[in-house]
Amino acid sequence: MSSSKPPSLEDLIKAARGLIPADLLIEHVNYVNLFTGEIYEASIGVFRDRIAYVLAGENRELKASKRIDGRGLYAIPGLIDSHLHIESSMIIPSRFAEAVLPRGVTTVAIDPHEIANVLGKKGVRYMLDASEGLPLKIYILAPTCVPSLPGEETAGAEITAEDVEEMLGWNRVIGLAEVMDFAGVVNLDPRILEIVKVGRRRNVVIDGHAFLSGLDLNAYIAAGMEADHENLSFREALEKLRLGMLIKLRAPYVLDVEEFVKGLKSLPKPFGFLLVTDDVLPDNLKRDGHLDNVVRRFIEAGLDSIDAIRAATIFPALHLRLYDRGVISPGKLADLVLLKSLERFDVKYVFADGQLVAEDGKLVYPIPQLTFPEDAKKTVKTKKLTEEDFRIKAPAGKSKVKVRVIEFLTAKSGSEMAEEFAQSLTTRFSIEELDVKEGYIDPGELAIVVVIERHGRTGNVAKGLVKGSGLKSGAVASTIAHDSHNLIVLGKNAKDMLTAAEHVIESQGGVAVARDGKIMASVELPVAGLMAEESLDLVAEKFEKVRKAFRELGLRDHPYAPPLFFLALPVIPAAKITDKGLFDVLAQKRVPLFLEETS
Amino acid sequence: MSSSKPPSLEDLIKAARGLIPADLLIEHVNYVNLFTGEIYEASIGVFRDRIAYVLAGENRELKASKRIDGRGLYAIPGLIDSHLHIESSMIIPSRFAEAVLPRGVTTVAIDPHEIANVLGKKGVRYMLDASEGLPLKIYILAPTCVPSLPGEETAGAEITAEDVEEMLGWNRVIGLAEVMDFAGVVNLDPRILEIVKVGRRRNVVIDGHAFLSGLDLNAYIAAGMEADHENLSFREALEKLRLGMLIKLRAPYVLDVEEFVKGLKSLPKPFGFLLVTDDVLPDNLKRDGHLDNVVRRFIEAGLDSIDAIRAATIFPALHLRLYDRGVISPGKLADLVLLKSLERFDVKYVFADGQLVAEDGKLVYPIPQLTFPEDAKKTVKTKKLTEEDFRIKAPAGKSKVKVRVIEFLTAKSGSEMAEEFAQSLTTRFSIEELDVKEGYIDPGELAIVVVIERHGRTGNVAKGLVKGSGLKSGAVASTIAHDSHNLIVLGKNAKDMLTAAEHVIESQGGVAVARDGKIMASVELPVAGLMAEESLDLVAEKFEKVRKAFRELGLRDHPYAPPLFFLALPVIPAAKITDKGLFDVLAQKRVPLFLEETS
Repeated sequence: MSSSKPPSLEDLIKAARGLIPADLLIEHVNYVNLFTGEIYEASIGVFRDRIAYVLAGENRELKASKRIDGRGLYAIPGLIDSHLHIESSMIIPSRFAEAVLPRGVTTVAIDPHEIANVLGKKGVRYMLDASEGLPLKIYILAPTCVPSLPGEETAGAEITAEDVEEMLGWNRVIGLAEVMDFAGVVNLDPRILEIVKVGRRRNVVIDGHAFLSGLDLNAYIAAGMEADHENLSFREALEKLRLGMLIKLRAPYVLDVEEFVKGLKSLPKPFGFLLVTDDVLPDNLKRDGHLDNVVRRFIEAGLDSIDAIRAATIFPALHLRLYDRGVISPGKLADLVLLKSLERFDVKYVFADGQLVAEDGKLVYPIPQLTFPEDAKKTVKTKKLTEEDFRIKAPAGKSKVKVRVIEFLTAKSGSEMAEEFAQSLTTRFSIEELDVKEGYIDPGELAIVVVIERHGRTGNVAKGLVKGSGLKSGAVASTIAHDSHNLIVLGKNAKDMLTAAEHVIESQGGVAVARDGKIMASVELPVAGLMAEESLDLVAEKFEKVRKAFRELGLRDHPYAPPLFFLALPVIPAAKITDKGLFDVLAQKRVPLFLEETS
Repeated sequence: MSSSKPPSLEDLIKAARGLIPADLLIEHVNYVNLFTGEIYEASIGVFRDRIAYVLAGENRELKASKRIDGRGLYAIPGLIDSHLHIESSMIIPSRFAEAVLPRGVTTVAIDPHEIANVLGKKGVRYMLDASEGLPLKIYILAPTCVPSLPGEETAGAEITAEDVEEMLGWNRVIGLAEVMDFAGVVNLDPRILEIVKVGRRRNVVIDGHAFLSGLDLNAYIAAGMEADHENLSFREALEKLRLGMLIKLRAPYVLDVEEFVKGLKSLPKPFGFLLVTDDVLPDNLKRDGHLDNVVRRFIEAGLDSIDAIRAATIFPALHLRLYDRGVISPGKLADLVLLKSLERFDVKYVFADGQLVAEDGKLVYPIPQLTFPEDAKKTVKTKKLTEEDFRIKAPAGKSKVKVRVIEFLTAKSGSEMAEEFAQSLTTRFSIEELDVKEGYIDPGELAIVVVIERHGRTGNVAKGLVKGSGLKSGAVASTIAHDSHNLIVLGKNAKDMLTAAEHVIESQGGVAVARDGKIMASVELPVAGLMAEESLDLVAEKFEKVRKAFRELGLRDHPYAPPLFFLALPVIPAAKITDKGLFDVLAQKRVPLFLEETS
């Protein structure tokens, strides 16, 4: 196959007229027309990285260097994901490209806010450098909320309005990523408003993230938020859609696809819904796939396949203002997926920029591995830890203490997926009276949680207690701890906690599970403490073992992501712990561990 | 009502939350939701020039400076016309604003290629200046094909790639207007390709205009043409739509609306059609309306009203990349239309930038009249004409001559509107033998046509004969003569032709009809010889009289526009006359009036 460099306009016109041969001709394929909804036999000519022509019916006279028989296959545009965090898949961009191209994903707009919390705008720059020239086209929406709650956690960096302005000047940075500080927006917080104003001034896409309703939601949208993926129930999504916000639907781990399809079908003429992935953990990515899986689940649940495909191709392209893709039309990028079945969304061939990159789920095109510079792999900076760091000293002379503990909710009022998901993240404070042994709190049925600032800035160590984590023995340590990604350690005893923490520090990031002083399972993530440079298969295998170890220890888990990863995130209700201490999300303030009336 | 200046982001957010009163509250209105297709009761709050909020149901607590009871009315966004030429309405932009705002049109993207043919890019600049700050938001797509056929006609100016580049740097110039030189594009003509490349490089919208099919159409689309309004039959339109081109549907004078609605409804899931006006002559504009009339006709013909409204609001907004309008949503421009009936598309109130501008078809807001500079009104520059200029001298010593005459087609093979329209513009050459009297051709049943270069550049005078014009007596002169807008005069005798021509020259432009040495009717258009600074009512009244005089003289007419206006346009088949002489459009060359075998 020829080079995938863009042709001159003159050559493109000549190729489209058939005056020079196409590089590739896909014949007799079932062309899924996203403008009319028809499916009919056609010939698709590709020249360099572009679609040259689409001709209905059989066309024997067309000349091409290479021909593919498309009989029995369905041609659709490459999938476009307009909201995701590569870091959630725990692999670097070039590895991510290897993983998702065979799934039919050819363009993504990522929010690299995890790495930005560790390395600031330099981290964003590294993500750009590490995705340059890949057949998976990676665009960046500049992170807007780093850290998630300024002043209440120590992230590795802050992103200011000036940073956002600078990043928007970089190639492939095309908008503002999810403005998670919705409370700041509606309450006129100057920091976030200055960032929003940068996006408004430059007239770029601004993505949203809000749990709001009524006039507050109106205010958030009025400020310029164009889309939102935080739709746990169709009712929430519908309120946003009615107000002109694009709704981005994540599946299958978070929302009840059947409920959404039923909801969409109940509307006379719905317009403005997109399919996205947001976060796909490596084991899920390996097992279920990526945006292809979201499309598949919606089609399975009864959404018309044309609507589902539009929601993952042309509509995200329009939303992202990427006018050169999202449809199979003359002059557009030759990003193509040939499916064996439209209903099962079975991917046979994937073309990116006119190149065959995958066949039957296997990569057939070499992806350059773009590794990260050394400083990106030295980000876990803590003092030398000891078991003492994982014990909680009681006030002198007490034999019992009353403490504020973080409690995971366990009562479920129904079987709804969204509720289950919300509960997996949601916590509350409760009061417990605990015994003191040798001057330290005995956690009893509870677990101890310690958050250690790991960016080398403050050395903060915050300690707390967790109820309902399920943990029966051992400990877990992780540098994935949204959003500041400090080192979080949850455990039943100081020894295992130290063992797990030391493994993670030694690896410069990752997740480790320890019991009886030994590492049971671990995944090493040295890039910013979040990603590995290894293949998806390797990372997924390790992470599967980590999840298996969680189960062995009894630790609460959720298909979307382990709740532990969100225990330090002070923007999700209601009881959290950052490196600065316990945080009451609803009251928006830090609270002490010990209650005053402790006797 | 308060000022319509844009609010600060902070004030907009406060107003959207209801913390400061709205300037205007429309209550109990039937809100036509373009994202869901639902229609439900809502309150719409407006703050300054923006929508602040939309709340479903009744909302008694909302505070506002002014309230409108929307009971029984339907709220839709202001209409957006993405392809039109204001010059066709023969009035200047501020008068055009007066005329179309009461119709519900609040944004237009104009192609000022008529004035550009007279005044070049200066003419485009004048159109910008003459539309600054109007409540009708006027955007410009830079003319790309001025003159329509370089070398074969003398326009007042040429537009080069450098001019297009410069114009795209001007405020409110947002793309390239219809690239009519479709033959040049597919045949790689460097002049037009350079212009197209400017648009591609700047990633702006590029509008099309093509009569192409098959691979040639693929090539034209591959070159970057995004939309096309030249759809006379649904079959043509469907070929374009299937290839991903937006189709812009003009009604009612040109296409058979029923045929198109039937066609659209036959598609499983059509997406990508827009409604536009292109050319609306003043009498039509006054009588039928503007884009409202196009919407109305499509709804009458059975198109779902949500689809019709989307095609004239949100979809053109997306096409033009005007993300701040086209829907009634928080933060968008408060361009609103309240209809008495959705089916009849009866406009009650029109708001532009939050201001009530029209009620019951009457303007209620003062429109500043932005006149043109004096040099724009001195553009008809010819020598002193005499009757001799309107006689055709025969070769010496001949008593009969064989001449090539321009013949209007009259045979109709059916009743299709599109065919009728095409035939009204389409001509062919035929051969006639005519008598010579006193050394001059006696036109007999034919009419004489003279095209006089009027831009003060060459002084060219070209003469020809026309068969089938219907003209029985008298003469017509016009400076509307697409696209170069030279002075065209059609008549049965030199005296009336001179009378009509002199009137037009004296008026510095317009159309005049003369019989028996007297002016029967005339419309004076001193701005570039194309537009009047008078109101639509006055101009329409004059033009109605002109059309009435046409009928009295037997002259062929068409509701869309008098065919005379297109007799000098060398890009429409097949027999035309420019200031340089007779032109064979299909052979793309000039041809002599006299045949060699003349005896």
